[in-house]
Amino acid sequence: MSKQIPTHQLIDGLLKGNRLFLARAISRVENEAADATEIVQAVFARTGRAYLIGITGAPGTGKSTLVSALADSYRQAGLTVAVLAVDPSSPFSGGALLGDRVRMTRHSGDAGVFIRSMATRSGMGGLAKATGAALLLLDAAGFDRILVETVGVGQAEVEIASAAHTIVVVEAPGMGDEVQAIKAGLLEIADIFAVNKADRKGVERAVAALEMMLEMGSGTTQTVRHHGQSMGAPAPETDYAEGGRSIPVLKTVAISGRGVAQLREAIERHRAWLHESGALVGRDRKRFDRMLQILVQVELLARVDSGLPPGSRQKLVEQVRRRQIDPYSAAAEVVKGISTAVVSAVSGLAT
Amino acid sequence: MSKQIPTHQLIDGLLKGNRLFLARAISRVENEAADATEIVQAVFARTGRAYLIGITGAPGTGKSTLVSALADSYRQAGLTVAVLAVDPSSPFSGGALLGDRVRMTRHSGDAGVFIRSMATRSGMGGLAKATGAALLLLDAAGFDRILVETVGVGQAEVEIASAAHTIVVVEAPGMGDEVQAIKAGLLEIADIFAVNKADRKGVERAVAALEMMLEMGSGTTQTVRHHGQSMGAPAPETDYAEGGRSIPVLKTVAISGRGVAQLREAIERHRAWLHESGALVGRDRKRFDRMLQILVQVELLARVDSGLPPGSRQKLVEQVRRRQIDPYSAAAEVVKGISTAVVSAVSGLAT
Repeated sequence: MSKQIPTHQLIDGLLKGNRLFLARAISRVENEAADATEIVQAVFARTGRAYLIGITGAPGTGKSTLVSALADSYRQAGLTVAVLAVDPSSPFSGGALLGDRVRMTRHSGDAGVFIRSMATRSGMGGLAKATGAALLLLDAAGFDRILVETVGVGQAEVEIASAAHTIVVVEAPGMGDEVQAIKAGLLEIADIFAVNKADRKGVERAVAALEMMLEMGSGTTQTVRHHGQSMGAPAPETDYAEGGRSIPVLKTVAISGRGVAQLREAIERHRAWLHESGALVGRDRKRFDRMLQILVQVELLARVDSGLPPGSRQKLVEQVRRRQIDPYSAAAEVVKGISTAVVSAVSGLAT
Repeated sequence: MSKQIPTHQLIDGLLKGNRLFLARAISRVENEAADATEIVQAVFARTGRAYLIGITGAPGTGKSTLVSALADSYRQAGLTVAVLAVDPSSPFSGGALLGDRVRMTRHSGDAGVFIRSMATRSGMGGLAKATGAALLLLDAAGFDRILVETVGVGQAEVEIASAAHTIVVVEAPGMGDEVQAIKAGLLEIADIFAVNKADRKGVERAVAALEMMLEMGSGTTQTVRHHGQSMGAPAPETDYAEGGRSIPVLKTVAISGRGVAQLREAIERHRAWLHESGALVGRDRKRFDRMLQILVQVELLARVDSGLPPGSRQKLVEQVRRRQIDPYSAAAEVVKGISTAVVSAVSGLAT
């Protein structure tokens, strides 16, 4: 084990683009080290330059290979790239780390690519919190583009990918019904569709099916897209106009690189459009509104036990199990306890 | 639109096993109707009889078909079955509802099977809250077995499936690397593995790979299994002994029914074992601890806007976007506002 690098040194190194320090800083955020919040707070003013690209889609679509090819394409275009692969299905990080190593080898020796995966043992909201913080660190370290790839397909993962500026949904020909159901869910968050493995049979059918779905949805898409109820009330979503833009459906073969440059160009066109239309501001607002929501949630839940007398949560759970109290009434007691604790901590009063 | 059924009538009907009333009650829970909490509270004392079976796994493994076949098998064994298919990837419910209709047709005319899918527009924790409530309603309606199937594969979905008594993880031969990574995450929650599509080539390899993973993990599995940090502190997980039990790996062909009776028997053996060993109590505690966590989270987040002066959340988000305040400091302000609001609501004091 190496010696602990002091926080201020880590921050300085990270801001200068030192990859080792960046990696360490991300680990501290991931592990919720004592100085995790301090690090993010210190670099926050230096963020806002990177462009975030979310890449999601069902497993088996070749998403990881496409992300790697896209990183190559950005490098060829002279831009620096960070890849953040988020694997939320597991507290284990073995799978993700193995994938990392494979990818590292491919891009090794290129200081313009940084690859990192995140998997966390943390409870609800923990991964989203760590991912949000890691994105800020990568941004502050100076990368031009950040590719955020989610491994799982679920509510939390779609949320994470949706926090990006441009959202690419990856498809592949010949996936089953279950994947179709997932696709319906991804339809409304996509800015761009990439039908990968386009050298396989069934690609034209997959493209046609997508285009039909998009056409069917076009009447309602504009109001539904980027939906996501934030905290108590729905987030404001009409403060930026996104109407009228059609969603491109591109064919790619990630393994040979075919169509990847076109995908990059489509992303960059979307980026230019967000800038010119002013819609980028709305996306950033939405992103920070989500981040705020996650942080509030994590913070409040962290106070559950401190806000209740020792053992009282276990006691409540046991009462629920014995059907002596219903879960809603038990939850109300916990909420009351947390709130009292927060208020007395804030106001300095003893209860 | 039919006339609104009064709450007490709905509750009475549900407790008598009236399927229409059950369906309506679930809809009210899903849509967060005004009487949703009242309904669950009213039936809660009548729950605790149903046995919950969680079924999860990557898309493309034939999970839905297997669930349907398993429901058939339970019917043949003389038990009543409810299926709850949870599709969290989408605020759209189109895909899930279509799947419902297909399945409904198969089981139509059999009053001993009830099939329902859930997809929700709600924000964080909303789906888990609705799922937990729906499970209680199905339990109170008298079903012997409840199969909870998740469509997506992600943190939230794994959490939902993990709340069951027996957790079946579905696999299939010949899935790609991405699926392997997901599998690693599912390994530690599985009580039983079903390698479906076992008539395809590669099945022996898939079984061998699983068994190897299980063997490799066996040294650590007992401490890691059913991990899940709840609320502030880790939930107590050593209060029930699960050591020593090996995890069966079964081969199924859902489409022809091969191996499905054996899967049912394995589930029932696990059920008997949980009863005899006393481990069932621990699983129920864990389930209600999670439910409490979800309810607390949803309740607290619902108070975000009411706890802050009008427009102040939007103002905070805008300050974050302009880098005038960092997200952590903004979150601290929101937490303070919520807590003050809860305390004054509870104590009846004006702020």
